Amino acid sequence: MTQKKKVVVVGGGFAGMHAAKQLGKSRDCDVIIIDRRNHHLFQPLLYQVAMAGLDPSDIASPIRSMLNRYSNISTLLGEVTRIDTDKQIVHSDVGELPYDYLVVACGAMHHYFGHDEWEAFAPGLKNIPQATEIRRRVLMAFESAERTNDKRQQDCWLTFVLVGGGPTGVELAGAIAEMAKNTLKRDFKTIDASLARVIVVQSGDRILNQFPEPLSEYAKGALESLGVEVRLGDRVTHVDAQGVWLGDERIEAYTVIWAAGVKANPIGKTLGTETDRAGRVVVESDLSIPGHPEVFVIGDLAAAKDSQGNPLPGLAPVAMQEGSYVGKLIRQKASGDSSHTQKPFEYRDKGQMATIGRRRAVLQSGGMTMKGTLAWLGWLFVHIVYLNGFRNRMFVFFSWAWSYVTFARGARLIVPKTWQITGEESQVHPDAPLPVAAGGASSEGREPSAS
Amino acid sequence: MTQKKKVVVVGGGFAGMHAAKQLGKSRDCDVIIIDRRNHHLFQPLLYQVAMAGLDPSDIASPIRSMLNRYSNISTLLGEVTRIDTDKQIVHSDVGELPYDYLVVACGAMHHYFGHDEWEAFAPGLKNIPQATEIRRRVLMAFESAERTNDKRQQDCWLTFVLVGGGPTGVELAGAIAEMAKNTLKRDFKTIDASLARVIVVQSGDRILNQFPEPLSEYAKGALESLGVEVRLGDRVTHVDAQGVWLGDERIEAYTVIWAAGVKANPIGKTLGTETDRAGRVVVESDLSIPGHPEVFVIGDLAAAKDSQGNPLPGLAPVAMQEGSYVGKLIRQKASGDSSHTQKPFEYRDKGQMATIGRRRAVLQSGGMTMKGTLAWLGWLFVHIVYLNGFRNRMFVFFSWAWSYVTFARGARLIVPKTWQITGEESQVHPDAPLPVAAGGASSEGREPSAS
Repeated sequence: MTQKKKVVVVGGGFAGMHAAKQLGKSRDCDVIIIDRRNHHLFQPLLYQVAMAGLDPSDIASPIRSMLNRYSNISTLLGEVTRIDTDKQIVHSDVGELPYDYLVVACGAMHHYFGHDEWEAFAPGLKNIPQATEIRRRVLMAFESAERTNDKRQQDCWLTFVLVGGGPTGVELAGAIAEMAKNTLKRDFKTIDASLARVIVVQSGDRILNQFPEPLSEYAKGALESLGVEVRLGDRVTHVDAQGVWLGDERIEAYTVIWAAGVKANPIGKTLGTETDRAGRVVVESDLSIPGHPEVFVIGDLAAAKDSQGNPLPGLAPVAMQEGSYVGKLIRQKASGDSSHTQKPFEYRDKGQMATIGRRRAVLQSGGMTMKGTLAWLGWLFVHIVYLNGFRNRMFVFFSWAWSYVTFARGARLIVPKTWQITGEESQVHPDAPLPVAAGGASSEGREPSAS
Repeated sequence: MTQKKKVVVVGGGFAGMHAAKQLGKSRDCDVIIIDRRNHHLFQPLLYQVAMAGLDPSDIASPIRSMLNRYSNISTLLGEVTRIDTDKQIVHSDVGELPYDYLVVACGAMHHYFGHDEWEAFAPGLKNIPQATEIRRRVLMAFESAERTNDKRQQDCWLTFVLVGGGPTGVELAGAIAEMAKNTLKRDFKTIDASLARVIVVQSGDRILNQFPEPLSEYAKGALESLGVEVRLGDRVTHVDAQGVWLGDERIEAYTVIWAAGVKANPIGKTLGTETDRAGRVVVESDLSIPGHPEVFVIGDLAAAKDSQGNPLPGLAPVAMQEGSYVGKLIRQKASGDSSHTQKPFEYRDKGQMATIGRRRAVLQSGGMTMKGTLAWLGWLFVHIVYLNGFRNRMFVFFSWAWSYVTFARGARLIVPKTWQITGEESQVHPDAPLPVAAGGASSEGREPSAS
């Protein structure tokens, strides 16, 4: 009996999970999937968590549970620090993981165009802590406006700037405007929440610029009908705690959300191979990296191309298809079956969609475009279908039905970041590195300090 | 037309909300309810949030929304700092609130018997950040055990100490044991999660000591059948990051949860009237404080007595009944109707219940006691019925049904406390005090630092 092949998958997003699920069917591989979070996240609905419509756990499932049916897959909670492709070792805070095949799928993060200090003022939306932070800021803005009598302060609190006119910026803008108009209006007595000013700043000449132009037009009109200001051809040149500058123009706003550029996870650079301007790893037609047919890069971290040589967008369907392709390819390689040569990866375009608000969405698939109520129903349907797990589907479906009928939002919680009553957040956490060294624990220093 | 009376309600828990709902029916009062959180919390189910069974928003609703039907009630998010009963002013971080009638219902917090430094190692369970912190610690403990190969470290990670054998300690212990045995066992490959050691430390001679003795016995047996160790007559003398001391005995455990003493909110002391040993305010038979018939203290902050002179327990039904009583009393006083004298407050004992796990609970009402499956069904029913809002009821019901059938827990998320990608948690938050003074804002210092 031959030795099983060791496969390491870095990242439990769409790409990594789809690769793992294919590898789970292999009899020739032992698989480790490592992620710094314990959960897989359904990114396309993350903005609804930020907008108090859904709970974090509605769109997240433990990676461990999702893969527990595959006896050859181990899940590890840990952070990868670098990858040594020569020695075939993944370095992480849980130790060294040697591999025969490697799948790198650790995604992208927000890019502040060289101004990382802006992040404090303008959080992005890539993970759950960021989503709940945005939720907290948006809800707190209305509360703070209610708490002051100063008109100018109220205006600053009730102004919301979205940097970026892609799907995330558009979805957030629509949701804030609808929340102010419908949900919050009846709850505040001093301020008129419906007067909230929501501004989308897009540097290009249209929003949703990866969609056909008529859909961009429709989306702009739909946002404007909700009272959102769409600023085209403007670029944010500075962000601080009180607002943004667009060149010479100042917009005072206490809530700014970043939905603009992304850059690849810096882990990609440690592969020692070519990366593009956004830090994405340039890959071969089988998604391996040049000179290392055993190392594959997929998802938002990869600069993959379609058969015409056009770069593939950072969309969930791309990541899923890449994951499945690579998982199958490794399975085949590990089995020693070289009877047929593997075809290059080819993306089957499923189209794309974005939602603006109630009964307002755009959808494009191949040559077909759709907008309005039908596109919105399509959006709802596709997102429910692709969501992981029956429980999550059911809960999201009920949440949406409930919100649609009542205009309420079920998750309007402002939760502070500290949990201790006695004030300052402690530096001591049991999962911080412990004073007791693993493997050589002594009882020294563990006596009661007062006895 | 006479001037309307100003009523301030401090605290949006069971007591404060029940008072507010009565006051909302008055035509003679303008009411302000102030709380430092934006949500009312259904405390009895908080342990289920800590145990990953429910989401925070399932058991919390915005105070603002719950009261938005009453046009005479304003909701304020703010923290009360002290109360001046002579000048009839509530001081808060949102300014001074003068009152004609005052309802103080700001509850209790955990008490570490003079060792506040233990809180960092042993969080209590009174609010949502604490519940999610406990959830994070418990789930991380299993992950950390899986990450190490050191047997002793694994044992420390898989040992859980609950300090206190009241309902919270019992509910948490049962839930951790069930989660380890049922939910997590199949998800971990290296460790055997079902070997987790759960220890309840109770200084008295029985757990659930406010229940009749046979029910305590039953609860102890039920916990033990789940593998929980119940330590009676033992007192925790020291807590640190690696475990607890019970006198001379050391228990190494990386997860310790505090479910022992409570003390009243220190706001009670600023009333300048008598408090008991736990800091609770001694009240008259109409729940007002001596010498101030316009100031009422209710809920966990009050040391109220029943008609036989026995102290009333810190239970939700007590708080609710006190709230309704005081709300009606103030309504009557404000209307100028002195035609009939108000009866003293009298608690109608509805009984009490606690749950240990699946089909294991205890229930006592008057002379009637119940245990096992029937008590458990009773517990489920009562908690669903009292939960606020149809949406929450429906979601909790479905969560429970789902967990019961599948043994899964829907909210197994480990969410870090920082939201910024770039590492350190920022000191800059838009809701922190702003450099711009309210009312006298200047544009100074708001120019772009780089232009």
